[in-house]
Amino acid sequence: MAGKLWQGRFREATSKLVESFTASVRFDQRLYRYDIEGSIAHCKMLAQQGLLSREEEDTLIQGLGEILREIERGTFVFDDAQEDVHMAIEQLLIEKVGEVGGKLHTGRSRNDQVALDIRLFLRDEIQGVDEDIKDLQNSLVEQAKANLGVVMPGFTHLQHAQPVLFSHHLMAYYEMLRRDRQRLTASFDRVDVSPLGSAALAGTSLPIDSEVTAELLGFSAVSRNSIDAVSDRDFIIEFTSGAALIMMHLSRMCEELILWSSTEFDYIELSEGFCTGSSIMPQKKNPDVPELIRGKSGRVYGHLMSLLTVMKGLPLAYNRDLQEDKEPLFDTVDTVRQSLRILARLWENVRVNKERMEKMASSGFTLATDVAEYLVNKGMGFRQAHRAVGKMVRYCLEEGKELEQMTIQEFKGFASVISEDIHEILDLKHSVDSRKSVGGTSLQLVREAITRAEEELSS
Amino acid sequence: MAGKLWQGRFREATSKLVESFTASVRFDQRLYRYDIEGSIAHCKMLAQQGLLSREEEDTLIQGLGEILREIERGTFVFDDAQEDVHMAIEQLLIEKVGEVGGKLHTGRSRNDQVALDIRLFLRDEIQGVDEDIKDLQNSLVEQAKANLGVVMPGFTHLQHAQPVLFSHHLMAYYEMLRRDRQRLTASFDRVDVSPLGSAALAGTSLPIDSEVTAELLGFSAVSRNSIDAVSDRDFIIEFTSGAALIMMHLSRMCEELILWSSTEFDYIELSEGFCTGSSIMPQKKNPDVPELIRGKSGRVYGHLMSLLTVMKGLPLAYNRDLQEDKEPLFDTVDTVRQSLRILARLWENVRVNKERMEKMASSGFTLATDVAEYLVNKGMGFRQAHRAVGKMVRYCLEEGKELEQMTIQEFKGFASVISEDIHEILDLKHSVDSRKSVGGTSLQLVREAITRAEEELSS
Amino acid sequence: MAGKLWQGRFREATSKLVESFTASVRFDQRLYRYDIEGSIAHCKMLAQQGLLSREEEDTLIQGLGEILREIERGTFVFDDAQEDVHMAIEQLLIEKVGEVGGKLHTGRSRNDQVALDIRLFLRDEIQGVDEDIKDLQNSLVEQAKANLGVVMPGFTHLQHAQPVLFSHHLMAYYEMLRRDRQRLTASFDRVDVSPLGSAALAGTSLPIDSEVTAELLGFSAVSRNSIDAVSDRDFIIEFTSGAALIMMHLSRMCEELILWSSTEFDYIELSEGFCTGSSIMPQKKNPDVPELIRGKSGRVYGHLMSLLTVMKGLPLAYNRDLQEDKEPLFDTVDTVRQSLRILARLWENVRVNKERMEKMASSGFTLATDVAEYLVNKGMGFRQAHRAVGKMVRYCLEEGKELEQMTIQEFKGFASVISEDIHEILDLKHSVDSRKSVGGTSLQLVREAITRAEEELSS
Amino acid sequence: MAGKLWQGRFREATSKLVESFTASVRFDQRLYRYDIEGSIAHCKMLAQQGLLSREEEDTLIQGLGEILREIERGTFVFDDAQEDVHMAIEQLLIEKVGEVGGKLHTGRSRNDQVALDIRLFLRDEIQGVDEDIKDLQNSLVEQAKANLGVVMPGFTHLQHAQPVLFSHHLMAYYEMLRRDRQRLTASFDRVDVSPLGSAALAGTSLPIDSEVTAELLGFSAVSRNSIDAVSDRDFIIEFTSGAALIMMHLSRMCEELILWSSTEFDYIELSEGFCTGSSIMPQKKNPDVPELIRGKSGRVYGHLMSLLTVMKGLPLAYNRDLQEDKEPLFDTVDTVRQSLRILARLWENVRVNKERMEKMASSGFTLATDVAEYLVNKGMGFRQAHRAVGKMVRYCLEEGKELEQMTIQEFKGFASVISEDIHEILDLKHSVDSRKSVGGTSLQLVREAITRAEEELSS
Repeated sequence: MAGKLWQGRFREATSKLVESFTASVRFDQRLYRYDIEGSIAHCKMLAQQGLLSREEEDTLIQGLGEILREIERGTFVFDDAQEDVHMAIEQLLIEKVGEVGGKLHTGRSRNDQVALDIRLFLRDEIQGVDEDIKDLQNSLVEQAKANLGVVMPGFTHLQHAQPVLFSHHLMAYYEMLRRDRQRLTASFDRVDVSPLGSAALAGTSLPIDSEVTAELLGFSAVSRNSIDAVSDRDFIIEFTSGAALIMMHLSRMCEELILWSSTEFDYIELSEGFCTGSSIMPQKKNPDVPELIRGKSGRVYGHLMSLLTVMKGLPLAYNRDLQEDKEPLFDTVDTVRQSLRILARLWENVRVNKERMEKMASSGFTLATDVAEYLVNKGMGFRQAHRAVGKMVRYCLEEGKELEQMTIQEFKGFASVISEDIHEILDLKHSVDSRKSVGGTSLQLVREAITRAEEELSS
Repeated sequence: MAGKLWQGRFREATSKLVESFTASVRFDQRLYRYDIEGSIAHCKMLAQQGLLSREEEDTLIQGLGEILREIERGTFVFDDAQEDVHMAIEQLLIEKVGEVGGKLHTGRSRNDQVALDIRLFLRDEIQGVDEDIKDLQNSLVEQAKANLGVVMPGFTHLQHAQPVLFSHHLMAYYEMLRRDRQRLTASFDRVDVSPLGSAALAGTSLPIDSEVTAELLGFSAVSRNSIDAVSDRDFIIEFTSGAALIMMHLSRMCEELILWSSTEFDYIELSEGFCTGSSIMPQKKNPDVPELIRGKSGRVYGHLMSLLTVMKGLPLAYNRDLQEDKEPLFDTVDTVRQSLRILARLWENVRVNKERMEKMASSGFTLATDVAEYLVNKGMGFRQAHRAVGKMVRYCLEEGKELEQMTIQEFKGFASVISEDIHEILDLKHSVDSRKSVGGTSLQLVREAITRAEEELSS
Repeated sequence: MAGKLWQGRFREATSKLVESFTASVRFDQRLYRYDIEGSIAHCKMLAQQGLLSREEEDTLIQGLGEILREIERGTFVFDDAQEDVHMAIEQLLIEKVGEVGGKLHTGRSRNDQVALDIRLFLRDEIQGVDEDIKDLQNSLVEQAKANLGVVMPGFTHLQHAQPVLFSHHLMAYYEMLRRDRQRLTASFDRVDVSPLGSAALAGTSLPIDSEVTAELLGFSAVSRNSIDAVSDRDFIIEFTSGAALIMMHLSRMCEELILWSSTEFDYIELSEGFCTGSSIMPQKKNPDVPELIRGKSGRVYGHLMSLLTVMKGLPLAYNRDLQEDKEPLFDTVDTVRQSLRILARLWENVRVNKERMEKMASSGFTLATDVAEYLVNKGMGFRQAHRAVGKMVRYCLEEGKELEQMTIQEFKGFASVISEDIHEILDLKHSVDSRKSVGGTSLQLVREAITRAEEELSS
Repeated sequence: MAGKLWQGRFREATSKLVESFTASVRFDQRLYRYDIEGSIAHCKMLAQQGLLSREEEDTLIQGLGEILREIERGTFVFDDAQEDVHMAIEQLLIEKVGEVGGKLHTGRSRNDQVALDIRLFLRDEIQGVDEDIKDLQNSLVEQAKANLGVVMPGFTHLQHAQPVLFSHHLMAYYEMLRRDRQRLTASFDRVDVSPLGSAALAGTSLPIDSEVTAELLGFSAVSRNSIDAVSDRDFIIEFTSGAALIMMHLSRMCEELILWSSTEFDYIELSEGFCTGSSIMPQKKNPDVPELIRGKSGRVYGHLMSLLTVMKGLPLAYNRDLQEDKEPLFDTVDTVRQSLRILARLWENVRVNKERMEKMASSGFTLATDVAEYLVNKGMGFRQAHRAVGKMVRYCLEEGKELEQMTIQEFKGFASVISEDIHEILDLKHSVDSRKSVGGTSLQLVREAITRAEEELSS
């Protein structure tokens, strides 16, 4: 069959250049499974409503099943002349089962069909991303457990701030990822809506039943306005926004993996299987995986901006601009899922250099706040205590010593309330364990956080 | 007092250039109310925990109350040397109540304090945006009600597609805005978490009780990890993503307002009070408001990109880069709220040109799909019916006539099943009313949609 | 050969997952021609400098030539284990010519090699884009010539402003595209710099001569700092910025093509070969091509944002994040070039509805400014004249008449200086032709603009 | 005076809400100087063309001069009812000089006027940014000179790669900034074009002379198409793209300043005057300035995206959306200029820790490439040499030694060609000085680069 299925009113054939430029089948063929699944549900509904005979229903569904198998076996080759996955499959069906294939599109338009396919796809992928996040969370929790008790310098401004448990630091990422999961779950509700029945934009005069197809396809709702249903790509943008946040979190994690792997930090070692070498420098072992993921944040940010731009200022309802929704979505899904999965594996293979971390944890006057809080406990106002300790730090800098090295006499020169018990304070483990405020870094709190996380992950 | 409150360890004064460059007080003063509210709750908790005497508590709370009144009366002038709203208020408090003011910051850091302030601010603003969306939804529903029954051409690809009710078109925007409200509500959960107690990044060794402050401030949760709590700006980005979607929806609405106000469309007339003139062309009456709002989508998209960029690749925990979170957030809030409110007013003043809409609704063979569906009802397969009607359209184009002008004989030349009843089909009202699939444009369905919307808005 | 070429210091093999995740050969194979061209120049230089014997040089160059032919014949299959196009070709060369192939990488790193390849690629593509812009400019100039004299309403705020020549409007796009060409030309200087010799980041101790390779490859300069040379992706971002502006211009043009093709405007008709139909609505003929190009602006904006994000905050010198530069660049090049070319063809097939344009040109008081300027010529101050004509317009609106329909008496009521000659003013052609200020819309000026454009395009 | 200057045709007053929403005078008042400068030139031209008498010319120019002085003295207060800076000044002029003030706007529209003002503003600011870049370049060159000879580890992938001169690293930034200057210079040509005479969009019928105003205002060209001239914001976007690249470069520099200031790196020390402390941790001295600038890259990226979004899909000619061009432009200018200037001062106050850098420069087998190149000089193929040295590194890692600590016997085990002279190779200074390929890090080349830079900066 030479022409397009919509060709009736056209005298001229589509320019080859245009055919190739406008075809989406190269990338939307990825939706084939969902397209066929949707068509099968549509056939069942049409039969139930008397728009297909039972025999026609069987023919169409059987034909669609065959097409599915052919595609999965790779024996069917899509080509640009078919425009998109929907037309390709309809046309193939007609070739296979004859004129009756032309009944498939009854009461339906590509406008609601493509919205359906993406929604089916994204429903699956959101669950997939959720699994992948859990996978990474699991790896983090495992590391947090395995290294429970290891103290590292906590940073603000990339300066040593206060000692914290390495596990507490890891659990910060657990929390970020937990929010990512919450956002995905929240966004799922707006994906899980069937647009079928909206047809081109106005609904159809044929006696279809949208509730039936929605139920067959496991949707929890049917779209409430047909014009909106075919114009709406919010759910893609909302998902991509969530994905951009995931990638942002991963970019931060990767920045730290890279920093910590440097000679200067030397906090961790990545396994060789997760690094690559240099074409020129024989000694190099590079943290390519975290670098690449850090870079891939740009990719997903870009897709988000791309999608928002596409939708800006479009009049209702469907416009062809919307075809630009799929490539960014597909690439976002792939990027996020691969990044999560590979980081989960990478973390399993990180060696933690505890001695180095603990050595650095006490460097840079990280216990100064403990001394200030000690003074507060002795009755001094906080701001005054802060000032006194600030002066101690300045004194130590000038004298080239650490706070721990000061004598009681020296301490008293800055605050007379200081007594021998100051030396209990000037201890890493003591410092960490004293941070018992909710969400703090004490061993007990972190242990509880790990337990809670394990429960969340196993539920 | 000349120096900074953190000045103890410093020998040199901050460079004036640096002071001015790094100061945020010019814009974060907007948070003063939340900062003071948070400090008052903090004082109450400190007193309850024995970290302040009741007398000290009273002094501090009274001092904070006075500062609030001074700021609101405009008698307090912020300046760059104070760095930020937090330091400005603490310093003023110390000036006012003396050394005891230095106890305010006990068990607290600016890192958790600023996160608290923004969360308090955003909690309010999310509710404000929600109200503003409802305001606009109300205007749309009013117009939909007032114009119920008016038929317009439904568009796809900006080409006439099928006749729809003007009210159905308006209700499509109602649905978009409904999703916007859902997203806001979903995001609220991630804003409504108190970070107080996280201190700099590690929690504090002082016996504070974060649950108390959280409860006093009406939060439903306390952050679970102190490092995460001071590093996290997800809630700002999630809000801004939601705002970008709102502005995207408004940009589409504004595009249509502009199109419809053109001489060529002439579908609506904006009231003069919502238009402005030209400095050179005496006849001009321009739809400036929708143009400006369409343009302002760029502003919010830009803020989203800005925030995502700021966070990319930052190591934990707090970094000064985070200071760049506030201006985009404030401007996003203002832009979205103003745009919603002014559109609500504008819609109240739109005059709908019903005659023009209805005249255009039948232009461009908009009933062709009705004919195809008629043929399906007569038993023809849809694809065959589509082809037959396509040929009718081509014939009409060549003959310079409309479908309605074809004789039964002519019709039968394309499809022998056509009979006299075809003329019932070729009627705008009939077409619209036949679209009874869920979400369709029939009068009854649209009336129901309006009623449901009114219920939602009044709940 | 099982291992990687850099494998010496590694005990573990690269994880398969990592191999697949980090491989760029799937997309950077597109650079094969430039990679081989660069390697051949490198060999020649190495031989000249005595780092290769003449025999070795011949062997390597012949081997590289064979590889080029194999790739172009499609008999060579790239796979992920080869990492990237550079390693794939080096490894294939070694398989082909033996151990001597290992001399190819003498005094070179992938870091300078990949920068070279992209620069060679982009040098070609910039020239290609320039040709494509000229192609589209040509089509515009042809239409401007063919329709010289046709008057249309000039718009501001999508409201009728003043009559202009349709050709003048088209030539506005010519000017935008002219600036696009200027920008490309300007950016070319920063692409046309050879990074070869920078090696990993520090240069090399081997006696290579970077001037020689630069000359062999036709570069006009050699990079001046080796660390910068391997870290720099400015030239990609600068190109993409220019591309974003091109797409922005095209999005405006496409918006107008879509508007003008609507039933309401009816200013132009796109040929059927450039439109597609609907799967459900038999009458539809949609302007898919301009819609899709308008949408594709989002794609290029997204790539720009992606690239800027990738580079943000990266320490020197090369980081693996930079691998994320190629896919956005390639897709930007393809998108821009295809969009330009297809629009050039589309414009050749646009039918202009002159009658409709001219009819609309006088609608909406488009000659009001002419009347005001007439009053200025009669000695009235401009602001006063503007006010008087504004009142005439209001009067006409109330009376339901056009300015042309006012009597001299009526005119005099608003401005006594008006006399019979006002009727000469109230004429479309007169109006257009009177706009003789530089860049104005008079027939003579537009004719000159067309002539100048033709000269520019033929040079 | 109650009404708007364009009010003639309006019966209703502008809604207060709309007045406030659409007013730009709050931010565009920044252009007052350029607006008045442009108006004075316009008056001179009008007089020369006989459209103003000499007396009127004097009155207007004198009035404009007075307004300029009032604004600069701060005695004039802009308010929203005046809409924008143009209307505010025109209205003030009329109040000041009477009805003749109404002649100012003869042959001009706000559409060409605002384009003029921004172009005048940006012409100045581009030169300002250029000066600021030179200022920072100067600081870098000074540091490069002062520390000439200091060796640091060169990094790729944040892993030690090869030793480089610290000055060479600094000069890499010099080169980036040099390209930034080139881009500014290139973009200047597209700013330096006078749009005056384009009027609303069509030019004017009054006998103005655009060449005269262009010359009076020092423009090198007049815009060639009036429709384009009032629709064009390319020059703003092109400038902002260039600014985004500047900020990207600064974000990289700042990342390094932050890294190098960390306890782990300890390569540099920022002066106290450029750091701030912590509200809770008494010991903190944070690199706030580079952090903030790194964050501000987001701000400028966001503005770029905002501007591109605003322009997407706008039909010609002027639309009110364009008003959204000014705030991002102004903030971009301020952000870039402040960031450049403060970094120039900061670099003057950086203390370089030479001992630490040099100590680290030899850590991590940074001389492995030197050994490989030594082997090449001894006649071994590069890939073979790379493999041999890779094995040496692996051996050293296993034995816990450095390459320098290997005996000749050990070396010969990996490559028999190695002899005693290998120890000359294993020396930092030797390594650096051997990198003599163009752009390499040898002392001589870096010294030459500094000299060339000094020449460029003094020209």
